[in-house]
Amino acid sequence: MTTTRGLARARLGDRVVLVLIEQDKARVLATESGHPAADVLREALHTGALDQAGGETVPVDDLELLAPVANPSKILCVGLNYLDHAEESGVEPPARPLLFAKFPNALRADGAVVEVPQDLSGELDYEGELGVVIGRRARNVALDEALGHVLGYVAVNDLSARDAQFSDGQWLRGKSADGFCPVGPVVTLAGDVADPQALRIVTRLNDQVVQDGSTEKMIFSVAEIISYASRYLTLEPGDLILTGTPPGVGFARKPPLLVKDGDTVTVTVEGVGGVTNRVRVVSEIR
Amino acid sequence: MTTTRGLARARLGDRVVLVLIEQDKARVLATESGHPAADVLREALHTGALDQAGGETVPVDDLELLAPVANPSKILCVGLNYLDHAEESGVEPPARPLLFAKFPNALRADGAVVEVPQDLSGELDYEGELGVVIGRRARNVALDEALGHVLGYVAVNDLSARDAQFSDGQWLRGKSADGFCPVGPVVTLAGDVADPQALRIVTRLNDQVVQDGSTEKMIFSVAEIISYASRYLTLEPGDLILTGTPPGVGFARKPPLLVKDGDTVTVTVEGVGGVTNRVRVVSEIR
Repeated sequence: MTTTRGLARARLGDRVVLVLIEQDKARVLATESGHPAADVLREALHTGALDQAGGETVPVDDLELLAPVANPSKILCVGLNYLDHAEESGVEPPARPLLFAKFPNALRADGAVVEVPQDLSGELDYEGELGVVIGRRARNVALDEALGHVLGYVAVNDLSARDAQFSDGQWLRGKSADGFCPVGPVVTLAGDVADPQALRIVTRLNDQVVQDGSTEKMIFSVAEIISYASRYLTLEPGDLILTGTPPGVGFARKPPLLVKDGDTVTVTVEGVGGVTNRVRVVSEIR
Repeated sequence: MTTTRGLARARLGDRVVLVLIEQDKARVLATESGHPAADVLREALHTGALDQAGGETVPVDDLELLAPVANPSKILCVGLNYLDHAEESGVEPPARPLLFAKFPNALRADGAVVEVPQDLSGELDYEGELGVVIGRRARNVALDEALGHVLGYVAVNDLSARDAQFSDGQWLRGKSADGFCPVGPVVTLAGDVADPQALRIVTRLNDQVVQDGSTEKMIFSVAEIISYASRYLTLEPGDLILTGTPPGVGFARKPPLLVKDGDTVTVTVEGVGGVTNRVRVVSEIR
């Protein structure tokens, strides 16, 4: 996935660095040891460091790109946020954003193999989503100020083990197993996204297009989600928000189309980036 | 709450320090800047630093005790883990540990006022629980090895806004609002707790005893919870596990007994410690 400009975390030699990628070059903004990602993000946003950073410049090819958020204090997810996805799931669209959780253990880099333990592999499903990375603390944020707290956008796959999700009732185990949150390598800066509510999201299972939606069909916009959530949970820099998936998920298809051992899932968000991961079923996580 | 020995985080002058408290003295193990709590905990457990630490010793009275876990990668909660609590809640006891989530924004120190936004204050409830702090990474841990991954135990109040919890269906908003996870000031080391399945838990609402249970009534023991969860989610040092609440919660009483503006809730876990917090209803979180 080519991305022209954006923030990324990467391994560079024996360091982990935060970089600003532009075309095939990457400017090193900070070395992570001693600079937790959230601090770097906060600083970048507040001081204009993104434009001033005078660090070394290296070829992108020298980098091993990692998941761009490392230890977010939260991965806040919104369920059933597309009218047509709520319909295909056979449930009423929610009257307010339906919040649920993933933990950082679920994060995986673009290209990483997601190892799924056998007992979560029976009804494994993809969900292509627009991810939002928070850049500035948000608490009780008004609707018209909400997008000012966004650092940038990223493609995310909200992998879901439907059997665990539905049999537990609470979605955590089916949604937050190790590796169940693959996230694109580059955070496209908010200023480079003209309208987060006009982005095409395409999910491919192997070579088949299985979701082809647009963020214009969200029930609750990115700004509404941030404003609403911030009335209850303070959002911190580096936090990741998953904004819900458009229709086309596997379990709702007739017949169902689920993710099997060896399958590859790619989520692409137009103008933002993509994330591709192969799934491997293992007897137990390692 | 007097605790004779245990780990704590505290403000000491202008530093945040990790200390080992013994009686009225505290030995400074590390200063937090540059030492995320999880690292300190990991080190403490692995190197025997707890017994060797040669840091300064200060009177406990000089410390302002904070929540002992600062930025856990996860706060993993178990629902309906006492048979009699499942009964009073009118649901079948779960066939496996029912996992749900809180985020670090919910943590509050002993003695801190919990400010609850008005629209979560209609059916606010207490849940006294035994908290478990992980000291060593746990992934696919066998039952008989699970307790070896425990750093220690702490008293926790799993505050719950029942209206939001049940109307959302997913429990996150009603369980993880800012301040909804008050946690005792001192982590009693695992070695100082003879049997985690023989601890009395008492919850007081103002001066009334509202829960008086024992961890011997857990459906899934601490070891079973850790072993089970670690098959799906890798547990990291510093992670906090809430092991479920005994019967006596407010919403299940006839008539209901809920937490109101100005009320004080105290959770005491015998041999472990306690946590006391006053609740204040505010128009919005600040």
